[in-house]
Amino acid sequence: MGRFVGHGELGASWLLEVSKDTLKRDPGMKKVCIIGTGQTEVGEHWDKSILHLAHEAVTSALLDAHVESVDALFVGNMLSGALSGQENLAAAVADFSGLRNIEAIKTEAACASGAAALRMGYTAVASGLHDRVLVLGVEKMTNTLGHDTTAALGMAADAVYETFQGVSFTALNALMMQRYVWQYDVPDTGLAGFSINAHRNGCHNPHAMFRHAITEEDYSRSRVISSPLCVLDSSPICDGAAAVVLCAAGSSSLSDGSRYVAPVTILGSAAATDTLAVHDRSDPLRLAAVELSTQQALAQAGAGLDNVDFLELHDAFSILGAMSLEAVGYAEPGTGWRYAMDGYIDIEGDLPVSTQGGLKSRGHPVGATGVYQAVEAVKQLQGLAGPNQVPNAALGMIQNIGGSGASVYTHILGI
Amino acid sequence: MGRFVGHGELGASWLLEVSKDTLKRDPGMKKVCIIGTGQTEVGEHWDKSILHLAHEAVTSALLDAHVESVDALFVGNMLSGALSGQENLAAAVADFSGLRNIEAIKTEAACASGAAALRMGYTAVASGLHDRVLVLGVEKMTNTLGHDTTAALGMAADAVYETFQGVSFTALNALMMQRYVWQYDVPDTGLAGFSINAHRNGCHNPHAMFRHAITEEDYSRSRVISSPLCVLDSSPICDGAAAVVLCAAGSSSLSDGSRYVAPVTILGSAAATDTLAVHDRSDPLRLAAVELSTQQALAQAGAGLDNVDFLELHDAFSILGAMSLEAVGYAEPGTGWRYAMDGYIDIEGDLPVSTQGGLKSRGHPVGATGVYQAVEAVKQLQGLAGPNQVPNAALGMIQNIGGSGASVYTHILGI
Repeated sequence: MGRFVGHGELGASWLLEVSKDTLKRDPGMKKVCIIGTGQTEVGEHWDKSILHLAHEAVTSALLDAHVESVDALFVGNMLSGALSGQENLAAAVADFSGLRNIEAIKTEAACASGAAALRMGYTAVASGLHDRVLVLGVEKMTNTLGHDTTAALGMAADAVYETFQGVSFTALNALMMQRYVWQYDVPDTGLAGFSINAHRNGCHNPHAMFRHAITEEDYSRSRVISSPLCVLDSSPICDGAAAVVLCAAGSSSLSDGSRYVAPVTILGSAAATDTLAVHDRSDPLRLAAVELSTQQALAQAGAGLDNVDFLELHDAFSILGAMSLEAVGYAEPGTGWRYAMDGYIDIEGDLPVSTQGGLKSRGHPVGATGVYQAVEAVKQLQGLAGPNQVPNAALGMIQNIGGSGASVYTHILGI
Repeated sequence: MGRFVGHGELGASWLLEVSKDTLKRDPGMKKVCIIGTGQTEVGEHWDKSILHLAHEAVTSALLDAHVESVDALFVGNMLSGALSGQENLAAAVADFSGLRNIEAIKTEAACASGAAALRMGYTAVASGLHDRVLVLGVEKMTNTLGHDTTAALGMAADAVYETFQGVSFTALNALMMQRYVWQYDVPDTGLAGFSINAHRNGCHNPHAMFRHAITEEDYSRSRVISSPLCVLDSSPICDGAAAVVLCAAGSSSLSDGSRYVAPVTILGSAAATDTLAVHDRSDPLRLAAVELSTQQALAQAGAGLDNVDFLELHDAFSILGAMSLEAVGYAEPGTGWRYAMDGYIDIEGDLPVSTQGGLKSRGHPVGATGVYQAVEAVKQLQGLAGPNQVPNAALGMIQNIGGSGASVYTHILGI
């Protein structure tokens, strides 16, 4: 299948106008590098609290960066209050991890909380406010205080017009999938490609929750959760934590001769929002905030879709994989699902997607996911992605979505 | 009483070492101004949801700044999940307030969530990432979903070692007060001065929840909640929202000739943390993060304690007023309570405190408080504080505490 790049062919009316102002990158801003990463295995960690998970990722990242301290800690998390009874989480993590007295702050943007923390950390370093910071994403969703995790996740949607009416977050995605399948005449297993690809890649990721391959037949026999969405369309409820250490290019943190891999640079960082409720959108199948943040991040990086070597997209449900491919600009509306069926998104394909298993197979500890994506992109760019290595990966795009498209963060990483 | 300034006289060992690195302000950082403010009345808003409150403050601030749009929205909030069933709050506010598609992020640092949002907004503008942003603090604590507000507030403390053992957040403050009163031999109504001062000032603040004066006799007859802490030591559970518009000095937002008041500048911004649990501190009566963030903010502003014309401190409980005066550096350990009894903290005193009623009288809608403090400081600096005007106010310090001293943000505002 030929590669479709850019919305230009769809006519300008389908495009959001990107304000020129928002594309400016102030010349005074510093270049920001990722010099260390850490991650826990994703899964059901019944023996670990949210603070134990956080500590594990923090320690790994500091070790990997060859540093012992940071100036500030940014923590992405959505549900520590609802499921662990703990707010003031960033101070709690700083205390528990031995980073006492440093600035520490929690960011929340539903399932995009991790990328929100990455963006705040990026801003703090780019501004010159801090020289070196730690960004953590962490979520503890299993073996919790007895609260209902599904209900807690519903808080990502519009409380008054969606959740209180009885729709779960999964059901909202099922409604979007129902509409998509109907509008574009998608066959029964039409969206299977995203999950099959994710599981194939997850097999080789030692941090992934599901390390087994699935087939189209498995998908077709998978139990329906909310018609037409089935178990194998859905990312799992799980625990996990991931962390990255950021510093300014030119910082003394980078001059340590013992470092053996090259730092990765954050070339683009952008955020956008959309209506919280799906029914408020002029087109329920259009992820406007994905479009907007993609365009801004690419413009900041001075790159085009053709330059992107791999894409970590937000495949919390397979329908989001298809809609993301369309909103990012790789596929025309209604055709995203086809790309997953034709090898296009394989490691060896034109645009490798979910290269370490994505949300579906690696797992989706919601507030941690955005930072897992960053960790995985760094591994790809450093050539350390093992069996899942994308050949000659030099530029990666990672995208984290909060709610059913309401909060979107796009980052471009390069080496 | 003479004015005690600085910890120097207490000996260096009582001081935290302030890293020189953290005091650096990168020369590339832009000067950040506050060009508009908005606030709702604080109280029990049974007829307004959290989004209605947010919208009211956002609209007022935009009107006051004479602007219609901003590049990004930073929302300080602690309990929207627990009490309104709504996370992804920043996207929700952007949507509900007609600021569709802009970057929007929620920050959480317990009761210091508002100041955390202010600091993130400050960083975004100082870095050059955005030209103009809106910072909102909002909390809806009354007439909620039926959840227990007291239990929700307990999430600011250490879940495992404090809250799960049965201690409420009020009881934690009562324990600190008990220790303080015992250690420093404070008389029964020794801490009354903070509440009396706050209520006296709140009388003239049209946005304050409690607009009546109280006497020492009222205080002495006040019902004990958790010995020795009584009702009149405590800030109320309430609803409210406050907002400020920030822009870079030199921005075109500032050149509008229709503006009739001078912008206020954020001269210093600092954040620090301490152990989450009180029992983990070497001295339970020492607010180490207050010390640290005060020193950093003053150093950044190039100012000393003598230059501060008024202080909005975090008087969620009167004991915190005394401990804050000591940690900031105006009073020696164990003497802070005396300063509130001698006119020192009056509007006409050496160091006016809680000039619009503070948390005790204006009210403490937790995640909104830090932004209320900023709004009130701006009014003081612009000479618009009415009967509570501090004569010739040119430099103000505002300080917001999350948990029992775990997350502290200090900002210095000047004109």
